[in-house]
Amino acid sequence: MAETTTYQVIGTRPIRHDGVDKVTGRAIYGADVQMAGLLHGKVLRSPHAHARIRSIDVSRALALPGVKAVVTSADLPPAEDRTIQLGEGAVNLKYLSNNILAGDKVLYKGHPVAAVAATSPHLAEEALALIHVDYEVLPPVLDVREAMQDSAPLLLENLKTKSLGQETDKVSNVATHTQFKSGDVDKGFQQADVVIEREFTTATVHQGYIEPHNATALWNPDGQLTIWESTQGAFTVQRQLAPVLGISVAQIRVIPAEIGGGFGGKINLYLEPIAAVLSKKTGHPVKVLMNRAEVFESTGPTPGSYIRVKMGATKDGRLAAAQAYMAYEAGGYPGSPIGAGMMCIFTPYDIPNVLIDGFDVVVNKPKTAPYRAPGATNAAFAAETVVDELCEKLGLDPLQFRLRNAATEGTRRPDGPTHPRIGYLETVQAALDSDHYRTPLEGPNVGRGVASGYWFNVGLQSSVSINVNADGSVTLVEGSTDIGGTRASIAMQAAEVLGLKAEEVRPIVADTASVGYNDVTGGSRTTFASGYAAIEAARDVVRQMTERAARIWKVEPPEVTFANGVFHHTNAADQRLTFKEVAAQLGRTGGPVTGRATVAPRGVGGAFATHIVDLHVDPETGKVTILRYTAVQDVGKAIHPSYVEGQMQGGAVQGIGWALNEEYFYSNTGVMANASFLDYRMPTSLDLPMIDTILVEVPNPGHPFGVRGVGEVPIVPPVAAIANAIYKAVGVRLRHSPMSPGRVMAEILAQGK
Amino acid sequence: MAETTTYQVIGTRPIRHDGVDKVTGRAIYGADVQMAGLLHGKVLRSPHAHARIRSIDVSRALALPGVKAVVTSADLPPAEDRTIQLGEGAVNLKYLSNNILAGDKVLYKGHPVAAVAATSPHLAEEALALIHVDYEVLPPVLDVREAMQDSAPLLLENLKTKSLGQETDKVSNVATHTQFKSGDVDKGFQQADVVIEREFTTATVHQGYIEPHNATALWNPDGQLTIWESTQGAFTVQRQLAPVLGISVAQIRVIPAEIGGGFGGKINLYLEPIAAVLSKKTGHPVKVLMNRAEVFESTGPTPGSYIRVKMGATKDGRLAAAQAYMAYEAGGYPGSPIGAGMMCIFTPYDIPNVLIDGFDVVVNKPKTAPYRAPGATNAAFAAETVVDELCEKLGLDPLQFRLRNAATEGTRRPDGPTHPRIGYLETVQAALDSDHYRTPLEGPNVGRGVASGYWFNVGLQSSVSINVNADGSVTLVEGSTDIGGTRASIAMQAAEVLGLKAEEVRPIVADTASVGYNDVTGGSRTTFASGYAAIEAARDVVRQMTERAARIWKVEPPEVTFANGVFHHTNAADQRLTFKEVAAQLGRTGGPVTGRATVAPRGVGGAFATHIVDLHVDPETGKVTILRYTAVQDVGKAIHPSYVEGQMQGGAVQGIGWALNEEYFYSNTGVMANASFLDYRMPTSLDLPMIDTILVEVPNPGHPFGVRGVGEVPIVPPVAAIANAIYKAVGVRLRHSPMSPGRVMAEILAQGK
Repeated sequence: MAETTTYQVIGTRPIRHDGVDKVTGRAIYGADVQMAGLLHGKVLRSPHAHARIRSIDVSRALALPGVKAVVTSADLPPAEDRTIQLGEGAVNLKYLSNNILAGDKVLYKGHPVAAVAATSPHLAEEALALIHVDYEVLPPVLDVREAMQDSAPLLLENLKTKSLGQETDKVSNVATHTQFKSGDVDKGFQQADVVIEREFTTATVHQGYIEPHNATALWNPDGQLTIWESTQGAFTVQRQLAPVLGISVAQIRVIPAEIGGGFGGKINLYLEPIAAVLSKKTGHPVKVLMNRAEVFESTGPTPGSYIRVKMGATKDGRLAAAQAYMAYEAGGYPGSPIGAGMMCIFTPYDIPNVLIDGFDVVVNKPKTAPYRAPGATNAAFAAETVVDELCEKLGLDPLQFRLRNAATEGTRRPDGPTHPRIGYLETVQAALDSDHYRTPLEGPNVGRGVASGYWFNVGLQSSVSINVNADGSVTLVEGSTDIGGTRASIAMQAAEVLGLKAEEVRPIVADTASVGYNDVTGGSRTTFASGYAAIEAARDVVRQMTERAARIWKVEPPEVTFANGVFHHTNAADQRLTFKEVAAQLGRTGGPVTGRATVAPRGVGGAFATHIVDLHVDPETGKVTILRYTAVQDVGKAIHPSYVEGQMQGGAVQGIGWALNEEYFYSNTGVMANASFLDYRMPTSLDLPMIDTILVEVPNPGHPFGVRGVGEVPIVPPVAAIANAIYKAVGVRLRHSPMSPGRVMAEILAQGK
Repeated sequence: MAETTTYQVIGTRPIRHDGVDKVTGRAIYGADVQMAGLLHGKVLRSPHAHARIRSIDVSRALALPGVKAVVTSADLPPAEDRTIQLGEGAVNLKYLSNNILAGDKVLYKGHPVAAVAATSPHLAEEALALIHVDYEVLPPVLDVREAMQDSAPLLLENLKTKSLGQETDKVSNVATHTQFKSGDVDKGFQQADVVIEREFTTATVHQGYIEPHNATALWNPDGQLTIWESTQGAFTVQRQLAPVLGISVAQIRVIPAEIGGGFGGKINLYLEPIAAVLSKKTGHPVKVLMNRAEVFESTGPTPGSYIRVKMGATKDGRLAAAQAYMAYEAGGYPGSPIGAGMMCIFTPYDIPNVLIDGFDVVVNKPKTAPYRAPGATNAAFAAETVVDELCEKLGLDPLQFRLRNAATEGTRRPDGPTHPRIGYLETVQAALDSDHYRTPLEGPNVGRGVASGYWFNVGLQSSVSINVNADGSVTLVEGSTDIGGTRASIAMQAAEVLGLKAEEVRPIVADTASVGYNDVTGGSRTTFASGYAAIEAARDVVRQMTERAARIWKVEPPEVTFANGVFHHTNAADQRLTFKEVAAQLGRTGGPVTGRATVAPRGVGGAFATHIVDLHVDPETGKVTILRYTAVQDVGKAIHPSYVEGQMQGGAVQGIGWALNEEYFYSNTGVMANASFLDYRMPTSLDLPMIDTILVEVPNPGHPFGVRGVGEVPIVPPVAAIANAIYKAVGVRLRHSPMSPGRVMAEILAQGK
């Protein structure tokens, strides 16, 4: 890509500001929080996937010495069955509250029912066994298609389906049916020479972050509640917590700790309200930690799904029509990422006729949470394998086919908006030109697959302030959780504007009381939007520093220019003051300088990726071994290329795990059989080759430096690419994910029959 | 005073934001800081008041199991004998460094010599006894006048006297001789009908804060140093620490804990560099705490002093001339508050001819530190008792005399500047009108005294930012240590501008990395200057919120007005939006709103106080009992009257302690004999009556709400007022402070002879 701008800091690879703290173990995570008088909380969880709660008797638990309080949903404010606005979205308050502590029903194994605070975690655990819950056990429904049937057990007796934007009187497990439509698919399929229609299913998988959930709460007698925890969005916690606890956001201060991974899974509330009410009851701070089984059974996995895709193309290799029927499992309460899946499924392509129907369906599994490009991986698995079949039928190279059909600037997206300048075409071309794709793959039972993916990215709101130190360094106060190196990527953007080195900008992630509002670290928004705020705050600093330089020279500010960290006086070329020199004189020229910016940028650039995978299938066991993997992605402008590469590699690896091994195994009664990292098989470095990356830089015109979000789209293509490669290796098309050895073997054996 | 402005929040008495945390013990003070791997430091201190260090052998201490490091001054960067600029002031780097850890000499008993870090405080203490220091003991000099003699032992062999702004070649214990001069005092005294000249001495006294000094340091392998501690100025610590450690301020983050009193004594460095180098050597965080004896013997007391005052007045009761010779003990290194004492000694009066000579003198006592209106109490003791004698000679009521001679707007101060609008005259009139002064005092051995005092106050630099929450409450981020309720007094000023309640503004005291530069909480500047910044930041919020309201109404911002928390559309009187309603729509109108301001306000208003005291002297023991006490003060505009009253009462009580009991008792060898609160006698509530307060409000034109600093001036008059009252009670004039029972008795007996 042509690079027209010269940067000093952007595009370099400085050591991250929080690096030493993290490698030496000094960084403070949520579980490290300690304070005087701390009590320990434990949560009693439902052993049943579906049951009515007749009664809860906590008296024996309360009588245990060392137990200070027991709480149930009765200790939360009455959870009204009404929709409330939370930031950009709407949510049912009863569902939000009942997922924290079950109301009249439990809806999944692991659903919290009660919690205990005691002087030690062991005592708290002992006390859980003394709580007696009288359950009326009900039959569970675990599969999305079964749940959609009229005969299915009903999870929520008041859930009326919202269909195409209208409330209906139909009570079912289907929360919503939405539709995107453009052109006329029937006419399109008539015009097509080749039409393929296939069904796909995907299993429930978990984000699998290393650090379990945690929360410590102190509810002060003055009504002020402080929460310490690892979260992707301190302000998001504050905003959700207020209605659940029936208090104002002003009464809540959330102090974010470092975070050991989130991937979307650390946005929803789990332990915070429980720790809070335990603290209110006891007058002590209360810390609650999950173990790994609790993380699997009670926090958000990504939805299992059923997807039917029908696509048609003409002989000249042009897509004529595409249709999808997508049903996503929301878990116990409505809210799967069905909308996002629908927004992504066909979006890499310019297709004249599209019809997408999406269903959000409750099942007796934990309430789903976002997981890296939520819903898009399931969708791409379906669409991209159908595209692969079309190419095969048409005798076209799959990348050439994509070049011909790629969405570009001006293409209308199926959900309505028009693409701005995007780099999808460029990723396909770069994949075609890559050493990987140009190197022939030979041998028995090996195959190469490709697939593309799209993620729309979000902008939302960010705030940054920058304070100038006397030595000309600056501190940068942000409110975005740093998961993937965003301290560095935000600080570097400010450094570029200020003419400083990355190390001279010291980024601090502040709490909800100490920085302006910031939306969650998610949606691939942080380097884009908080970086945007950092640029604007730095420009605000430059404006003020220019005035100071003008004051020192006794001239008017317009006579002073600033470039590369140096102020010049336009009428006296020999007069110069460095940023540091002006900084040293702030006290004498009007006091300290603080720059600040709050932004809600709209120019979000969508992200596209094209992945190439070579693999081998063992025909005796069905085991798939990844031989070579290349992730190509339009990354806009890469601020810190190492961290962009890290996002691409991490996303690809999560996608590989999802494709080959990861899934929740459920018993008939809805009990997860593999709720540990021993039995829930995630890939390790020993399972994988190096993930090669190709960064395609098509600057996003909606950001001063061209940034577009990079964190999510790399998880979108892998499942489809692997399915396509398996077909090339052994001639079977897998349409269920994961493509674990047993399933691959079954398909091979079925083919042989 | 006429009150022309109506305020909603200012002048009310809301509960302080940090109140519950402080009364419940939840507030985190420096000593509460805990972290993994914490080591404990202890400091070895000189047993001698004056000695040369021949050698230090730390080998036995290092060999003790559990001892991780021992440091001496050799572990600090070489302390060059040169003057460096620190903010507004200059300081000798060698003196700054050697006071932390002694170089070639120890200059006072308690002077730090070495320090140990060990796995427990007990081990660290044990290890101190194993350090062998070879001292060459030298004779000490403990009194300022003795130290000024040519024959006195020299503390600093390179200290050349700076006289009237000029460097001299004279090596002595006199660091500086400065002079303020106006008119011609000789001529003035000739015109006077009554001239009085007297000599005064004051003992060394300590600030006596409850909380001992503390510091915890973590010097990260990446070069970043973090300090947690109780300090009056986190940025001031950062700024002093950088040159002592030879690193940049950007490498230092100071996280302020709550503070258990400071009164000026928690500004200088003591433990921070020691904890830092112990951390650097060990790779662990290191916490160092002082005990009470260390606080007395090694941290800044206020200077002992010798003052000679000569004043003359004409028969009609007008002051004709005033002269002072003032010599202040700086302690082991130069830097007594002599300049401040000189600025205050005659400033309540309009005197045509003034000559003041001041001397800063090193003696073998701990380096002095600021103590509430530093130097002014000593000065007022001298001048105000001479005024009392003049009044007696002239047969004038002492308050009437002050009315006649009071400095007012336009009067030139002895140090040069001219008074802006001040309220001294009003305090004298209010004292005259008070119930206390109008109530006759009768009985044997009782007396009433009055005295006035002045403190100039400072402005310096402050930064504040304000973030708007979705519910219309705001958080206010400041960097000023809250000692006397300044969270409330700053938040209330923002609340007034925003039309919010005090409780709807949540103030946060942030660390040096998270807020713009803020000078120390001292000089009575915080409610004035940080309050000023809060007002400006709030106005910045209003500007932005006005734009949002305009956007909602689709009009131009100038068409929107804001008053009392409500936005109005000038062309549609019925259209209104509250601050909260606009706040709820920030996400839809351009993102979050953050206001910020950095200020260096110049319009500091000087503070004046006039105190009245009734007391009884026991003629058999010399014990003085305070019967009634009224503090009258021009407080500008009282933001939170309770905290203003608290400052006045606290200052008066400290002055009473200073007047009657507090002093360092030294042995001939310079060892403090009473380094504990059992033997260093501070007044308790049982020793005192209620301190009545009269708030005189003369708004300071240099502040939007008329604020002037109130915290320091109340300590200025008490010593003089009590001396004057003792004279009225038993007819003896005390000219040494404290006027302890023994000294009062000695004067009574001498009188009787």
